[in-house]
Amino acid sequence: MFARAVGMELKHRVIILGGGFGGLNATQKLKRAAAADVTLIDRRNFHLFQPLLYQVATGSLSPGEIAAPLRGVLSRQKNTQVLLGEAADIDPDGRRVILRDGGQFAYDSLIVSTGSQTSYYGNDDWRKWAPSLKSVEEATAIRHKILYAFECAERATSEKEARAWLTFVIVGAGATGMELAGALAEIANETLKNDFRHINPREARIILMEGGNRVLASFPEDLSAKGEKLVARLGVEVTKGVMVMGIDAEGVTYKSGNESKRQPAKTVLWAGGVTTNEFGRKLAARTHAETDRGGRIKVGADLTVPGYPDIFIVGDLALSLGEDGKPLPGVAQVAIQGGAYAAKTIRNRLEGKKDTKAFHYFNKGDLAVIGRAAAVADIFGLHLSGLPAWLVWLFVHLMYIVEFQNRVLVFVQWGFEYLTFSRGARLITGDAATDSLDKPAALGSTGDGG
Amino acid sequence: MFARAVGMELKHRVIILGGGFGGLNATQKLKRAAAADVTLIDRRNFHLFQPLLYQVATGSLSPGEIAAPLRGVLSRQKNTQVLLGEAADIDPDGRRVILRDGGQFAYDSLIVSTGSQTSYYGNDDWRKWAPSLKSVEEATAIRHKILYAFECAERATSEKEARAWLTFVIVGAGATGMELAGALAEIANETLKNDFRHINPREARIILMEGGNRVLASFPEDLSAKGEKLVARLGVEVTKGVMVMGIDAEGVTYKSGNESKRQPAKTVLWAGGVTTNEFGRKLAARTHAETDRGGRIKVGADLTVPGYPDIFIVGDLALSLGEDGKPLPGVAQVAIQGGAYAAKTIRNRLEGKKDTKAFHYFNKGDLAVIGRAAAVADIFGLHLSGLPAWLVWLFVHLMYIVEFQNRVLVFVQWGFEYLTFSRGARLITGDAATDSLDKPAALGSTGDGG
Repeated sequence: MFARAVGMELKHRVIILGGGFGGLNATQKLKRAAAADVTLIDRRNFHLFQPLLYQVATGSLSPGEIAAPLRGVLSRQKNTQVLLGEAADIDPDGRRVILRDGGQFAYDSLIVSTGSQTSYYGNDDWRKWAPSLKSVEEATAIRHKILYAFECAERATSEKEARAWLTFVIVGAGATGMELAGALAEIANETLKNDFRHINPREARIILMEGGNRVLASFPEDLSAKGEKLVARLGVEVTKGVMVMGIDAEGVTYKSGNESKRQPAKTVLWAGGVTTNEFGRKLAARTHAETDRGGRIKVGADLTVPGYPDIFIVGDLALSLGEDGKPLPGVAQVAIQGGAYAAKTIRNRLEGKKDTKAFHYFNKGDLAVIGRAAAVADIFGLHLSGLPAWLVWLFVHLMYIVEFQNRVLVFVQWGFEYLTFSRGARLITGDAATDSLDKPAALGSTGDGG
Repeated sequence: MFARAVGMELKHRVIILGGGFGGLNATQKLKRAAAADVTLIDRRNFHLFQPLLYQVATGSLSPGEIAAPLRGVLSRQKNTQVLLGEAADIDPDGRRVILRDGGQFAYDSLIVSTGSQTSYYGNDDWRKWAPSLKSVEEATAIRHKILYAFECAERATSEKEARAWLTFVIVGAGATGMELAGALAEIANETLKNDFRHINPREARIILMEGGNRVLASFPEDLSAKGEKLVARLGVEVTKGVMVMGIDAEGVTYKSGNESKRQPAKTVLWAGGVTTNEFGRKLAARTHAETDRGGRIKVGADLTVPGYPDIFIVGDLALSLGEDGKPLPGVAQVAIQGGAYAAKTIRNRLEGKKDTKAFHYFNKGDLAVIGRAAAVADIFGLHLSGLPAWLVWLFVHLMYIVEFQNRVLVFVQWGFEYLTFSRGARLITGDAATDSLDKPAALGSTGDGG
């Protein structure tokens, strides 16, 4: 029952930190590296299909439907073990990773794919009032917050109060902000339309605030314009060129031009930027690596940290330059390809082959979904919007999710929802979000009664 | 947008507390009562299909798959509104319900179906170490606890430690305890069998402790014996006639005969008895009603509280006697039929008809599922076990769940799992259960990184 494998020490120890797109892909690509002893370490026991997290937040999918247990995915990969733990520190010269619980693990090669976390641009107190969409817990907290707002509006005792509960502000009009805004509009306009007696959910205001001068800034300008049109058609109000100055329980204070303004809203969601996490900062400090403003670590053409050819960084934590000299974006594709590249380099080294050539990111295209049959896509320079882009989005996501057992479920669920506008996973659970709600005592509280 | 309906006051106000089997059924049965103005109040925004909650706890289903949003279910029922709130007190003479947030609601007829909560028989400190299976939150906490135990066993540094993590005690061998034990055995024997490198999940010990002298005490004796045989075949150790004296982080202390014993186990689950909740106790006190040891309120043959013909109690809170003079059990069927009866009585009164005859419980049978193709059933005196009973169980549950949109999903998911032994919803999320885990700091902690 209890046997530490003997002889493992003779093999090349590969440690992979983080089971996201980059780490999981790297792990799987090492499957046939018989000379390697692979350990995947993650603080969670599952891989999360993050691009669909907004569907959990908006009640379309359950967390279990967009997550795959890492052990399950890798159970047949005999040279690999999965370990639940969180990397806290690293000794790059002694080649050891230190976990938060004190455990130490020596490596011969290390692939770091610990990702990014939400950045509130130094205003961490905003987090309390404006959750972001990074983890399953945050997604369910957002779901709670959205549904709870309609419940409170229904019970409001004045028009003003009801209006504040029915005003939703989303900060940031990148892909995540657009997805959230579109889904929220659909909830208000369709899903809940018959559910209340004192309010009309269709009168909910959804305000999308963007600091720049266009939505979907990472897309070409014509697609930004299309995207804005599509989201506006759903009733979302887009406000560009604003700078958020404060967020609290009652709304958002922002600057538009030189004017300071105030938008009352009981629900604010954060779809702003990202920054590195604590381990990323430790790693940068210990390796004296160069970082950018967001804390990303500058890696070489082979994705290793300068001076440390045994440490690869892939995904959001890596600052890696594309052909055009611009940093590669923090998207799943970059992480997946980076993970595969790092694994291949390690395999080549083990087989005594010359190092592979420099990492080359092959951009398959960019996609952002806005609502039912509404999306924008930039595929090899071909600009699509509306239904065609949405069909591409659907196809791409179904293909990727095919990796998981949940593909059938997601497909059935989407089909059902598409036809009926209903959303199955509309549960208000837990109390994760209630802290940030200005709520009457114990209304909607959790417990085992009732 | 904001309009309290005028003229409603002229209608007969029916308030229903609790959207479980009893309350939801009563609400739906009042659909065509045009003279009634119905308000369903629940602290949660969803109806929970409680009989399948153990499948959430054991990672087969996601919470969203066994829950239906109350507003969605009732959106087309025009005489009905749903209200998120928790009943805290009642003024039975003034005919008003007082919510925890201070809101007061007057009624002409009241149906109380607030259910029961877990009883630790006065040892509420055990709750911390031995969660029970009553709410979605508890189910996910149990899931967390079970999966986390295997993770800790994998990382254990001694055989003794690994063994403690791989020992699971379930207290109570009623239907819930049997279901949990069977599902847990399947997880250990099948689902996780290839997932670990240092432990063999099949060597997990699952101990089912029962105070009485047989499992499934509410079933006929021959079915108890069959049930015990079925669960033993899965590797579950059944210990009868034991009295739990203490539960802590390291295990269970119990008495067997006159002997005091100790069972080390890092994971203890509680499948013991139930008692009424706070509102039930308030209601009993305010109406000076008779209660039994478990706090259930004795109701008349028409399910009303003696002296208060306008207050119906249905489901777990009611102490209602069957034909045989024995109290009706706290099962879904009793609640459903009670809710329908109360609704019908109110409709009859509104139509000026004579009161319906006394409530008669029609027992369609008892079912308990133990594992794949293993169950026991007592249907109209016909005793089934094994595969036939399991097929009945499957059929009955699919039929009931047909009410919900999730029927297709559950069906697909079950089919998939039956064929593959996999479990899709194997997520360790939140921190609900971590308090009760004797865990290394921050291992498996939650957050947005990684």
